[in-house]
Amino acid sequence: MIKVSVFYPNGSDAKFDMDYYVKSHMPMVQDKCGAALKQIAVEHGLAGGTPGAKPAYLAMGHLYFDSVESFQGSFGPKAQEILADVPNYTNIAPVMQISDVKL
Amino acid sequence: MIKVSVFYPNGSDAKFDMDYYVKSHMPMVQDKCGAALKQIAVEHGLAGGTPGAKPAYLAMGHLYFDSVESFQGSFGPKAQEILADVPNYTNIAPVMQISDVKL
Repeated sequence: MIKVSVFYPNGSDAKFDMDYYVKSHMPMVQDKCGAALKQIAVEHGLAGGTPGAKPAYLAMGHLYFDSVESFQGSFGPKAQEILADVPNYTNIAPVMQISDVKL
Repeated sequence: MIKVSVFYPNGSDAKFDMDYYVKSHMPMVQDKCGAALKQIAVEHGLAGGTPGAKPAYLAMGHLYFDSVESFQGSFGPKAQEILADVPNYTNIAPVMQISDVKL
């Protein structure tokens, strides 16, 4: 199983509409990717690792696929449509990473 | 539910013993935190978001608790023992974040 993580870095003028992300963007991503997208996870950053520290990421979204090929084959052809929705919920340039799920 | 994420940034001389992390460190964390620790997740970074890009994080570990108070009450008293094990599997200074699980 692989996990595609999208990190939204925190910042003084960072805006993120969590309600839209959870209720509109993520369901749209699920719809576009179809059955290849096995699971979705979303988190809202609360705090950093030391007392009073802000979280590095204001929000994170995660998409689970069986393999990198499955991700590329399902998300790839729809990437432009999906990315076109980003300005509807945030002004943050997201950082993406693909990881192998070990546990 | 809250998620405590520990990110291990990638780097040219970054070392990370995934086998030790999965088979020794994480079971030790589970043991120290007890029933308050609801779920564990571990990922190994494969790639960044653009072709040929390296992952921002070489590894990530996640701990799920019912609340921030539950995390502080169970992990807090054992933090020193847990953190003392970090040099046994990596030379990376980890970045930590607490997040609220939305989905």
